[in-house]
Formats: sequence, C-alpha cells, structure tokens
Amino acid sequence: MAGIRVEAPKSRPVLGRRAVISREDLIKAAVRLVGPNRSVSTLSLREVARQAGIAPNSFYRHFRDVDELAVTLVDEAGRALREIIGEARQRAESGRSVVRSSVEVFMKQLDADEPFLPLLLREGTVGSPAFKAAAERQLQYFEEELQADLVRLAALRGETMVSPHLVAKAVTRLVFTMGSSLLDMPREQHDEFRESLVIMIRMILTGAEVMARGIELGNHRGPSRQ
Amino acid sequence: MAGIRVEAPKSRPVLGRRAVISREDLIKAAVRLVGPNRSVSTLSLREVARQAGIAPNSFYRHFRDVDELAVTLVDEAGRALREIIGEARQRAESGRSVVRSSVEVFMKQLDADEPFLPLLLREGTVGSPAFKAAAERQLQYFEEELQADLVRLAALRGETMVSPHLVAKAVTRLVFTMGSSLLDMPREQHDEFRESLVIMIRMILTGAEVMARGIELGNHRGPSRQ
Repeated sequence: MAGIRVEAPKSRPVLGRRAVISREDLIKAAVRLVGPNRSVSTLSLREVARQAGIAPNSFYRHFRDVDELAVTLVDEAGRALREIIGEARQRAESGRSVVRSSVEVFMKQLDADEPFLPLLLREGTVGSPAFKAAAERQLQYFEEELQADLVRLAALRGETMVSPHLVAKAVTRLVFTMGSSLLDMPREQHDEFRESLVIMIRMILTGAEVMARGIELGNHRGPSRQ
Repeated sequence: MAGIRVEAPKSRPVLGRRAVISREDLIKAAVRLVGPNRSVSTLSLREVARQAGIAPNSFYRHFRDVDELAVTLVDEAGRALREIIGEARQRAESGRSVVRSSVEVFMKQLDADEPFLPLLLREGTVGSPAFKAAAERQLQYFEEELQADLVRLAALRGETMVSPHLVAKAVTRLVFTMGSSLLDMPREQHDEFRESLVIMIRMILTGAEVMARGIELGNHRGPSRQ
C-alpha cells in the first residue's frame, strides 16, 4: 500500500499467531479481505484478526472497533489514489495531455493490485453514513488538490479560469459518478467510456476558461469564428 | 401523481376493506408509505395492502410481488419528474433562463408532496441491483430528452454543440450526483448550492458550443478577446 511503511515484526513465530503486529498489517489484512467487490461494512473483527494472524484481543491495540478500521481504510484508499492521480497531473504539461493521462491513470486503478478506487467508489454510494462521510471527505481533498493544479496549469498557459473551485468540484463529482458505472461495465466498453469522459472534462475546462473572458452562453453569440 | 388516472372504485364499502382497487391506488399507497426518506426496498406487501385498504391477496391482481411494485414506483417517479422538468425547459426560451429555471424546478421537487426526486436519488445510489437498474433507465430517458432539447435550443440561437449526447449525459449525471448531497443539506445552504450548480451546467454548455467551433483547450489559445 503506497505510503504505508510496513515494519518488520519484532517477533514472528514460525507457526500460529504472530505476537506483534502493526496498525498497517491490520489495514493490509482488511484490504486483502474486501478485495474489489466487498463493502468494508461487512468486515468482522474476528476475520480481520484471523487474516492478520493475531488474536482478536490484539486488534484493540490499534483500533477501537472494526468501524474505525473501515473508516481508516476509506481514508487510506483516498490518500493513495490522490497521490497516484496527483503525480500523473504533475507529469503532464499541457491541458490536452493532463486530462487524458489523469483519466487513464484513474481507470487503470480499477485493475490495480490494491483496490483503492473500487473501495472509494463503492463506499461513497452504498456505505453506512460514517463510510459515506469518509468517502465525501476524500472527494473534497481531491477537489482541493485539483483546484490548485487547475490554477497552476491555467497560469502556465497565461489563462485564467472562472470559479476554479466549482470547476474542480464539477470534474471530481462527474468523474466519480461516471466511475461508479465502470465497476459493472464490460471491458470492451472501457475505450468508449474513456473517450467520453475525456470530452466531458474538456467541456467543463473549456467552458470555464471561456466564461472567465466574460463570454457566456445565451447572452452572447460567443467568440468570433476567426 | 402526475399522469396517473385514478379511477373511481366501482364499489367502495363505507367501512373496512375496499372490494375493488386499481393499480394506481396501490402505487399511491406505496408512495405515501415511503415518504421522503424511506427506501422502496423496505416496503412489505402486507403494509402496502393495509395502506391501500385491500386484502393482501388482492395485491397479486396488479403486481407479481412487492419488488415489481417498487420498480414501478421508480419508473413512475422518473416519468413524473421528466415531465415536470421537460415542461420547465419548454417554457424557457433562452439558454440563460433554461438552465436556471430547470435547476430551480429540480430543487423544488425536493419539497413536493410526492417525493419523486428523493425517491429517484435514493434508489439510484442505495437501492438493490433491480432498483438501481430502474433508476439508471430513468436517467437515460432524462439524457435522451435533454439531448433533444439541447439540439433544439442551440438551433434556435443558430448554434451547434459538440457531442450533444455527451453534453446531456454530463449535465444529467452531474445534477443527480450533486442532488444526492441535497438530501442531507441544511436549507440555508440551498441558495449557494443552486448558484453553484447553475454555473457548473453553464460551463458544460459553453464548453460544448465553443468546442463545436473547433476551439479546444490546450491546443489553441482560445477565441479572441474581441
């Protein structure tokens, strides 16, 4: 799991339960259990402990209960995903490539070994109130980071953008709501999906730049055809 | 319920159960039971029958089971809502007013006597696979009708729009995903929410029109400032 340091256990019995386990080991055990399809709300303390190879009582050294672990899982999924997408945006330079490469990296996460994206998409829509709130918090972090990058990229091109926080919100919400349908989509439709999503995001970005110049739909015939 | 004809029962005992009941009576009883907060998946056949004033066995004259009634409820909610929003779009003439008035009508449906919008927003995200599929079908109908209206309104202004089906999809998905957060939002934040949503939709529409002129973000400095 990106960003989680796995410490070597101080003592590790060859057989049977491990004497010492880290918080990260428990998170990893839970990630293995939920896989790409299972909700964190169905995890039980006993099975996480069993998967991690510790006694159930040792669980409480790290988490108050299994719900606290589940919320941590959503937080970790969001954090890891933001790191991956943020790096993709940093690498991309032009407005054209940044949209496509971010969408590609986003979609690639559906097949990643650690199912952060499926987890986030699922808990944002079907989770309990606590898990939904955790997913919502992660979406807000996405929006804040995207907003900072949008402002940066627009400035690089000498452009401004109307309401960058609304641009970031519209793009993030659209990508995540469209992404939810990816979970059940046959693989052969993914190419078309990616192209559609790229066009939708460009519409938002283009609209925001044009509106920053004071040109708006319905009260202006728009820019000249040149 | 808009569009549902309620036939006068042929015989109606003064007290006790009614002898004859229509399919629409059962739908209305179910709508009263779910109210603004309850999922259709929690309805039981017995309680719907009791609410409608019929014997449980009479239920089967109209629906195979309570799940069939629940899917019908989602369909009806979508149909009624599309009619209401479609009428608002027909009345509006310019691009400016059509966005604002559609968003206003949409949001007003949160407080309507018959909770179509809450029902659709809820079942689209937390319902069973069958209810989600029903809500998804309704969203696709929304998209098709919005697409037709977008093409019509753009033509009225002598404009074209790039990929109108993607514009319609982006607007519909964004409005519904943003709408989901309305369900739990304090009333005093609704004004700000409405203004944000109007700006987001205008970004998409403006972007789509500008892109139809072959101007795109990142490979062009954009239209002249005039």
